[in-house]
Amino acid sequence: MSEISNTTSHSTADRESAAGRDDRLELRLWLRLLTCSTMIERRMRAMLRQQFETTLPRFDVLAQLERVSEGMTMGELSQRLMVSNGNITGLVDRLVEEGAIRRLPSQTDRRSTRVSLTPEGRKIFAAMSSAHAQWIDQVFAGVGREDKLRLYDLLGKLKGSARVSAGSSDT
Amino acid sequence: MSEISNTTSHSTADRESAAGRDDRLELRLWLRLLTCSTMIERRMRAMLRQQFETTLPRFDVLAQLERVSEGMTMGELSQRLMVSNGNITGLVDRLVEEGAIRRLPSQTDRRSTRVSLTPEGRKIFAAMSSAHAQWIDQVFAGVGREDKLRLYDLLGKLKGSARVSAGSSDT
Repeated sequence: MSEISNTTSHSTADRESAAGRDDRLELRLWLRLLTCSTMIERRMRAMLRQQFETTLPRFDVLAQLERVSEGMTMGELSQRLMVSNGNITGLVDRLVEEGAIRRLPSQTDRRSTRVSLTPEGRKIFAAMSSAHAQWIDQVFAGVGREDKLRLYDLLGKLKGSARVSAGSSDT
Repeated sequence: MSEISNTTSHSTADRESAAGRDDRLELRLWLRLLTCSTMIERRMRAMLRQQFETTLPRFDVLAQLERVSEGMTMGELSQRLMVSNGNITGLVDRLVEEGAIRRLPSQTDRRSTRVSLTPEGRKIFAAMSSAHAQWIDQVFAGVGREDKLRLYDLLGKLKGSARVSAGSSDT
């Protein structure tokens, strides 16, 4: 196992540039993780804008709804997107206006309206989703399959660890 | 090497919930990476708010400036934070008003003003930085040292791959 090395040069400054050689592995690891996710997210934003004139938050809402035929409540949607309810209300309103999603009145509770994709929304999303999968493939093209599986496993461990740490001291 | 498994349950829905069992490894990997970085970022935001009544973007600006005694231009700062220049102008203005950072007029170009930490800003950041490092340690507490080194290496490969893919087709 190699020791950590500084692969960041001045011409490619990023979030990792805040880590010094003497910083702890954990901090360097976090800044590298953040750099990767920011780079990939930024690329997805650019591609969605260029090729579909849409935004990442809109894509994310459609992606979550595509998984469930019965729709989901705003609470479920915000939990899955890991953002606050208020952040997606306006987004959902606009997607409803445009006909990509619709509100289904709940049979049990008027307050917990469900939203779901319309057939039109499902069609729009299918095209975006297929292109998005290709862009993601390109992002990972330089990482071998064994390394991808290893990375997937290690991120699973990190996710478990982060969840435990959040549960132990959040107020 | 284990095959990918779905560790997401309904009670812990997150960004990964948009991935189906039949989805490609690359997509599942991206959504897991995004889930990890979102969880950790959310936790840092919460802790900074609770313990220092400050925000993550403010912390990030101070963290970048802490590395360089000679300060940096707004362009350098926005590149390192991986956000647009416009996004940090207001932030920097407020930090200047509060006395945490100051503007240094450039000797060569009036337009490329540099910003740097004040002694007071350096003191404030030292306290936040030490707490932040502890929170990050907690987040990674459930991941062994060998796994952390492996993860660091694999994320380095991913970063290289993502950079190549961005360079090859960005317009």
